[in-house]
Amino acid sequence: MMFNPAQIELFSGLPADLFCAAPAAYLEEPRKLFTRDAALLARPRNVEQVSRILAICNRNRVAVVPYCGGTGLVGGQVMQDGPAPLILSLERMSAVRDLDVAGNVMVVEAGAILADVQDAAVAVDRLFPLSLASEGSCRIGGNLATNAGGVQVLRYGNMRDLCLGLEVVLADGSVMQGLKRLRKDNTGYDLRNLMIGSEGTLGVITAATLKLFPRPREVTTAFLAVETPQAAVDLLSQMQDSLDGLVSAFELIHRTGLDFLKETMPQVRLPFDPVPEWMVLTEVGGGTGANIEARLMDVLEQAFEAGLASDALLAQNVAQRKAFWEVRESIPLANALIGGIASHDISVPTHRLPEFIAAGAVLIAGFGDLRLNCFGHLGDGNLHYNVYAPKGAVKQDFKNLATDVSRAIYDLVAAYDGSFSAEHGVGRLKTADLARYGDPVKLAAMRAVKTALDPQGVLNPGTVV
Amino acid sequence: MMFNPAQIELFSGLPADLFCAAPAAYLEEPRKLFTRDAALLARPRNVEQVSRILAICNRNRVAVVPYCGGTGLVGGQVMQDGPAPLILSLERMSAVRDLDVAGNVMVVEAGAILADVQDAAVAVDRLFPLSLASEGSCRIGGNLATNAGGVQVLRYGNMRDLCLGLEVVLADGSVMQGLKRLRKDNTGYDLRNLMIGSEGTLGVITAATLKLFPRPREVTTAFLAVETPQAAVDLLSQMQDSLDGLVSAFELIHRTGLDFLKETMPQVRLPFDPVPEWMVLTEVGGGTGANIEARLMDVLEQAFEAGLASDALLAQNVAQRKAFWEVRESIPLANALIGGIASHDISVPTHRLPEFIAAGAVLIAGFGDLRLNCFGHLGDGNLHYNVYAPKGAVKQDFKNLATDVSRAIYDLVAAYDGSFSAEHGVGRLKTADLARYGDPVKLAAMRAVKTALDPQGVLNPGTVV
Repeated sequence: MMFNPAQIELFSGLPADLFCAAPAAYLEEPRKLFTRDAALLARPRNVEQVSRILAICNRNRVAVVPYCGGTGLVGGQVMQDGPAPLILSLERMSAVRDLDVAGNVMVVEAGAILADVQDAAVAVDRLFPLSLASEGSCRIGGNLATNAGGVQVLRYGNMRDLCLGLEVVLADGSVMQGLKRLRKDNTGYDLRNLMIGSEGTLGVITAATLKLFPRPREVTTAFLAVETPQAAVDLLSQMQDSLDGLVSAFELIHRTGLDFLKETMPQVRLPFDPVPEWMVLTEVGGGTGANIEARLMDVLEQAFEAGLASDALLAQNVAQRKAFWEVRESIPLANALIGGIASHDISVPTHRLPEFIAAGAVLIAGFGDLRLNCFGHLGDGNLHYNVYAPKGAVKQDFKNLATDVSRAIYDLVAAYDGSFSAEHGVGRLKTADLARYGDPVKLAAMRAVKTALDPQGVLNPGTVV
Repeated sequence: MMFNPAQIELFSGLPADLFCAAPAAYLEEPRKLFTRDAALLARPRNVEQVSRILAICNRNRVAVVPYCGGTGLVGGQVMQDGPAPLILSLERMSAVRDLDVAGNVMVVEAGAILADVQDAAVAVDRLFPLSLASEGSCRIGGNLATNAGGVQVLRYGNMRDLCLGLEVVLADGSVMQGLKRLRKDNTGYDLRNLMIGSEGTLGVITAATLKLFPRPREVTTAFLAVETPQAAVDLLSQMQDSLDGLVSAFELIHRTGLDFLKETMPQVRLPFDPVPEWMVLTEVGGGTGANIEARLMDVLEQAFEAGLASDALLAQNVAQRKAFWEVRESIPLANALIGGIASHDISVPTHRLPEFIAAGAVLIAGFGDLRLNCFGHLGDGNLHYNVYAPKGAVKQDFKNLATDVSRAIYDLVAAYDGSFSAEHGVGRLKTADLARYGDPVKLAAMRAVKTALDPQGVLNPGTVV
């Protein structure tokens, strides 16, 4: 369906250069699961323009798809069906409005790229801890809209925990001024957290106050060979007990991930030879005198004695640290090159993960000789649980299994009181899963809230609810 | 106004012993700012009974006032005006439903007393960090409904940050099952945080999943004489940089607080003689080997050299630690014995507190020879800012100043982008302040959400919105 050029007339009171036909990149998401042939793209420069655009769309019932980096994996950024929407990109609103070092806060616009925000913090000797594979292209507004997670949630929390305040344009164009910098503020309903993670369906986030942290002065990064997932969980528990919450990352990696790297990205240097079945990449950081490395070594020695771990590589310098992380960050790329049948972003209570992993392996084996790459943020109970065709087989021959495999995995997740979407969100991809696995009372309450805040239903239709 | 005995007939399908005429304690709040002569009290034993009671009230448009420990300071627990409400006390639902040590979570019912929850955690060698003056009588449901804060927010966050999941009965009696134990779960709108801090106006919280933490093995508690509030802020900043977020408390205390203690509670042993104008009570805790005391001493030595602090008393044992905290916790009691003209629970960005304190002192001096006791959670930017008549004067002679004093203070807070209610909530006491100082767009959105989730308006009418 083409976009309706008559739409442009609707916006005649605004500068013409804010609008154009959307280039192809705005009309498909990374895995091309959702695509559209055409839409009008708006790229406002300030919150007033966002406000005017939303007011016009609301009056004329034109659907609005908020757009930031476009890196989301659940289709929240591409409206495939229905009359042509307006794609509202925040890319021209990327300013750091304020960098308040003494207050440990930063006010940034929604279009700021995550890596730029991290760099701006480092430039004033502070840390903005959100860190994920797409940080070079994803934008803060999208990170907020999806409550992004990543590799440092264990210590610093997800995006929700890193935000003190929001500026949001509501469906009717009214602007909610909430760029507070307060650590405590109990004056009414928590609409900030309601907006965070609502995937563009309740309002358009245009700016945010973000928390900054002291940069750790001593950082130790270790690649560990662990005996089993249970050994990894036990080791994490001991590290948490001994290291005061300073463990910032604890990533479980299976041998399959490294096999995929060997096969598709041979330039990535692998840490072990031979490769053990299960590995952990962990990072601990503290202030001067925190004695991180010695304390971590104490825990690891006990872990060796208890048979939890069999080998440990400690990064000796920044280059080695980067090399370790390159392994972890390349696994999703290798996965994409191999090409999966079905992928899942799931969580269960952390200490039940080993049991879940064992049960999941049995389940997948029941579908035949499939390959499984299960890895991720063990410290948060969050695994990326991906299923692949047998080596040498044609992927398309197994695509018909996808629905049944996912159903089986999600049923298992539900049996463990887990989540079918730990960090990616619901988007358009998982609305049926939400209807199936979500609490019906919560769903009804969500719909009531949606109707209350967006009575015309113009904000990102088809997403979440 | 008497309660209507005909109401009892409404509930004839439920056990009769759940209902009685409310004893006096349920009909007034601690400062007797809100009172009522009579109401029907319901004390259900389980969530099904709560559900049935709410469904009946909703159908019959009987207002419901959720009630836990009754310790709130803004009148959220006493509906003074309008037809007699049903007071719904959660006190009989106080079970610990599950204590999952490996998972570091605890599932407790809303009626559990905070101190009992703390003790249950300690019994399995874990910490539940919420800590506040009323912990011996306040209950978890109230802590959640008001997003309680207290003395350890700096390190562990407020109640919002300590909760992973909720069971909530909505206005129509439907039960939202959300007792998740997940660290990451992005499956729809964040109704958990919407309920937390909504002061019983959007639903009745009946149970919660709470986070548990490792207990610090080394704890250092210090009473410091600091030169000025600015010196205290600078010292905090240095401690945060050096001590990896292990500072759990950083309380500012003014000499007036100790003068009040001398006057009203001479049995409390005071830490300094002579008493300096400004003091800080701080606590730092870490795991074995964290070397807390030595690292704190390093920071303090630098602070002495820089002229920020002039004296430091380190607790040598548990008894001394308790004695230090007794001073801090007795100040609110002494305040009550002295009797204030106006009290305020305010926050501003932490690093602007010194400027705010200076401006506030000038402002109060403009009203005459009043006394000011300004103290509290400096680490969170949160001060309890209380104003008293001159020594020897009759308090009632100054009561007429209360409204003007509060208005002046709140205007100043607003000028510093602060909050007129940092941790106590809005309740019935501060609804006019919310209308005056809140963002009108946010207020309209709050009202829309309230109407969506409680269309009959039966839940705690007159509170917040």
